[in-house]
Amino acid sequence: MKAVLILSGGMDSTTLLYDLIDQGYEVSAITFDYHQKHKKEIACAQKTCAKLSIPHKIVNLSVLNDLAPSSLTRADRDVPEGHYAEESMKQTVVPNRNMVFLSLAASYAIGIGAGHLFYAAHAGDHAIYPDCRPVFVSAMSTAFHLCDWNDLVLQVPYLMLSKGDIAKKGIGLGVDYANTWSCYKGKERSCGKCGACTERLEAFREAGAADPLEYEP
Amino acid sequence: MKAVLILSGGMDSTTLLYDLIDQGYEVSAITFDYHQKHKKEIACAQKTCAKLSIPHKIVNLSVLNDLAPSSLTRADRDVPEGHYAEESMKQTVVPNRNMVFLSLAASYAIGIGAGHLFYAAHAGDHAIYPDCRPVFVSAMSTAFHLCDWNDLVLQVPYLMLSKGDIAKKGIGLGVDYANTWSCYKGKERSCGKCGACTERLEAFREAGAADPLEYEP
Repeated sequence: MKAVLILSGGMDSTTLLYDLIDQGYEVSAITFDYHQKHKKEIACAQKTCAKLSIPHKIVNLSVLNDLAPSSLTRADRDVPEGHYAEESMKQTVVPNRNMVFLSLAASYAIGIGAGHLFYAAHAGDHAIYPDCRPVFVSAMSTAFHLCDWNDLVLQVPYLMLSKGDIAKKGIGLGVDYANTWSCYKGKERSCGKCGACTERLEAFREAGAADPLEYEP
Repeated sequence: MKAVLILSGGMDSTTLLYDLIDQGYEVSAITFDYHQKHKKEIACAQKTCAKLSIPHKIVNLSVLNDLAPSSLTRADRDVPEGHYAEESMKQTVVPNRNMVFLSLAASYAIGIGAGHLFYAAHAGDHAIYPDCRPVFVSAMSTAFHLCDWNDLVLQVPYLMLSKGDIAKKGIGLGVDYANTWSCYKGKERSCGKCGACTERLEAFREAGAADPLEYEP
């Protein structure tokens, strides 16, 4: 079955890529460059697709940065430190980001005749990102049934999993986590302090494994 | 009340702009440049916004042309002639176009603190464009209630009107239809034969008025 996966280059979507290949899907990946500070994730997505021989489309979406400023994209706004689920993390919300990604990925999926669209939202995202919540996924799922004359099925298989569960699954699938990126600051090494690092380190602890990435001391 | 309107520069959305101003909305307009052959509509949108002193954002969305080819955007595909509601018009469907437009317009609306998002789908669109149908609008409306922590209301007031009804309304509102564009071919003068021209001429006939645009002989 033909499927399109929104691949950020982070842990979750990279795990889902391995998972879908394992399940026998014929996957095409799509990655969005919206001038995020953590551009390293895009390079990771590229390497992973090259390694796994997956067709990969990188979409220049600088317009999102222009339309919807957030601390993830603007040089003049600092990325907050602390736990991913804290109120301060709301500064990292790019308004309606997932609907924009999903809608463009759907255009692509319809264009290449893929009947399935995957993204890797997970349970840890719900508190901060409104567009990762099950109710949002459910509404979008209905919209995807109706946006084209052919059916397009939205699949979000990690929606109720924690990031730790995803890491466990990925370790079992042989995911190369050295080639994934999470840190929102996007410097040479991961900061270990921003919401994305905190959550990533927590996930590896939960999975009882070591994170292969290097962190700032 | 602050509102964002998706303005193509065609008859319907231009009429809706006049209508919203008349109703007292504080409107910002957003127009998408997806390398459509009928780029003239963008120039019309610009002129209308300048004339009415409406903030206007033009978004470069050439990526949609790349992701989702259609006869509206590709030089190597001819725009079909004939009635708008015919099967052949399906070649003019840009897959999932309206969801892409709506999702980016919503990012913009959330960013500027507008609680209302308008687009001008109408009853004549339903047969050919899946993403103009009431069921699609209803699903997107739900998704917009959920995509952000604040509510965003999707409004599609012309959904059950014919294009003739819209023309009648617009004539009453003093819309300058000489400064709107419909023809899909986007040449010097309107072709009078493509689906968009056929529908436009029908609308003016229904409204009992003359179309101020010039047509090819």
